[in-house]
Amino acid sequence: MWQEIEQQPEALRATIDWLLPRRDEVARLAADTRQVLLIARGTSDNAAVYGSYLIQAHAGRLASLASPSIATTYKASIDLDGVLAVALSQSGRTAEIVETLEWAKANGARTLAITNGGADSPLAVAADVAFVTQAGIERAVPATKTFTTELAALAVLALALGAPLDPGELRAAPEAISALLAAPLDLTPIVDELAKVPGVVVSGRGMAYSAALELALKLKEACYLHAMGLSYADLLHGPIAVVDADTPAIVMAADSGPTLAGTVDLARRVTGAGARAYGIGGGPALAAACSRALAAPALPEWLAPIGLIVPGQLLTEALARQLGINPDSPRGLSKVTQTD
Amino acid sequence: MWQEIEQQPEALRATIDWLLPRRDEVARLAADTRQVLLIARGTSDNAAVYGSYLIQAHAGRLASLASPSIATTYKASIDLDGVLAVALSQSGRTAEIVETLEWAKANGARTLAITNGGADSPLAVAADVAFVTQAGIERAVPATKTFTTELAALAVLALALGAPLDPGELRAAPEAISALLAAPLDLTPIVDELAKVPGVVVSGRGMAYSAALELALKLKEACYLHAMGLSYADLLHGPIAVVDADTPAIVMAADSGPTLAGTVDLARRVTGAGARAYGIGGGPALAAACSRALAAPALPEWLAPIGLIVPGQLLTEALARQLGINPDSPRGLSKVTQTD
Repeated sequence: MWQEIEQQPEALRATIDWLLPRRDEVARLAADTRQVLLIARGTSDNAAVYGSYLIQAHAGRLASLASPSIATTYKASIDLDGVLAVALSQSGRTAEIVETLEWAKANGARTLAITNGGADSPLAVAADVAFVTQAGIERAVPATKTFTTELAALAVLALALGAPLDPGELRAAPEAISALLAAPLDLTPIVDELAKVPGVVVSGRGMAYSAALELALKLKEACYLHAMGLSYADLLHGPIAVVDADTPAIVMAADSGPTLAGTVDLARRVTGAGARAYGIGGGPALAAACSRALAAPALPEWLAPIGLIVPGQLLTEALARQLGINPDSPRGLSKVTQTD
Repeated sequence: MWQEIEQQPEALRATIDWLLPRRDEVARLAADTRQVLLIARGTSDNAAVYGSYLIQAHAGRLASLASPSIATTYKASIDLDGVLAVALSQSGRTAEIVETLEWAKANGARTLAITNGGADSPLAVAADVAFVTQAGIERAVPATKTFTTELAALAVLALALGAPLDPGELRAAPEAISALLAAPLDLTPIVDELAKVPGVVVSGRGMAYSAALELALKLKEACYLHAMGLSYADLLHGPIAVVDADTPAIVMAADSGPTLAGTVDLARRVTGAGARAYGIGGGPALAAACSRALAAPALPEWLAPIGLIVPGQLLTEALARQLGINPDSPRGLSKVTQTD
């Protein structure tokens, strides 16, 4: 897992170089569509959450997550004319995702695959256009570089859909992650504290929400921690009751942007309730509001999740080892999941 | 909380009697729309999940959940022509939800409010049409009857959108819940076991997923339990690693329908991994696959969540008392939540 975390700048560079020139192809595919339907599970579902925020906030289109069982179990017939269906799968081989993409196409959607499984994977073959990420082979069961390259592919998709954002900022993202990885973070104090708690809440808002969901999933998968990924608002609407002296919160935010101030307030509420708050990203403002904090790669808000997850991955890897778990192959998981 | 659980048959009867005759009004409102966008937070968000499955599985329309921060924080401009926006709020006074509904209207959507806050609540006033649920005043902080009456309102919405389902089955739902409440469940063995664990996973698929999310939220709010609501597929895609001897799963399913077989398999996987599985609903098949089980009211699959949550509410109430928590006013919560 650690090696694959380190490979991310290179994987991202290759993916961005490969996909950015293919924006026109997706723009043509999407020309007569008005909205985006994202189809994914697990880690790819967390990437899809990023896609939905990015496309809605910056590309002026409704974007939402599909419920695959509507296709595979209920076998519903729904008019998807005008819909661009985007299916994400690391392997490109998860039968449920392939079946849902085929369902979308049969119901009138245009279809795009985002996969690291190659142009000959079933998902890529089934789609009108395939964005094949260039992460190389991923051996550790908890996904790392296949997640961040999916995020990069979604950033390219947003640009292809007309988001008025700077592709140069995307091109610069791998270097920002390299810089973070070159100056190792001091994870020990947080790892020592997390090793003693039964659970943790991971929260973020807007773009950062996807990184919070993904970090919660990593902590569940690789550390068997009861980690709940909650949006800022959903944490306030009830479950803040679970944050206490035994249950810290990890709070993630971009270094700038419209959600930072609210996230800083949330961290203050957590510490005010007597719980520990660990910040990831959010610059000096979030660090000051938290018990402990980790810096994230310096990225603009629209790309922040690509960087925010990296300190989270390092934290997961270190915590798993501290707990005596091999992070490369935790229990109960296989690399290609078949739901049915 | 217990009194309000008991009031649900009456609250449902009043709500169904009030709303079923207003189907035509919503059918006219929705006449030139092609999809549904649900706007909600917290408990109402869990109701919205039911609405999205019900409308997609049976009313032939795409239905998805909005991200309110796209409206309130990112202030994005999105073309919502052809969209029926449905905002749900128990109080009708949560500013974020009212603001998101107003944003949807300004962006071209038709709008429906579902609220227990009355016809003069800000949400009802802001919407083109208001479905006012008839739950009466709810005093306990954890929502019970305002949740099930929201589900009933969504069932009426699905009928108004042309779902070929039997309104008589909806009219019969209160009686099925009365029958369950009249023969109290033996909760003690499960309560005794749950009182000793740090966390629990709550899972369900399709229609039942909304009930699983809502039970997880109740257990977090009122019992401070690390309860994770996960769809069947998402549980298999990774977090099944958190299920172990200390972390049981509560598995919920309708007594019939296309998701039952998969849910029974999931319960077998959980017990096969050495963890405890508690079934709610799912008939004899699910009960046989679980360590312990609670029956749910006898309802057809499309209405199952209205009944499935009731044993869950009773379990939450009993567990809170066993843990020394007053379920009517747990820490950290107020009845009207303002996110901003």
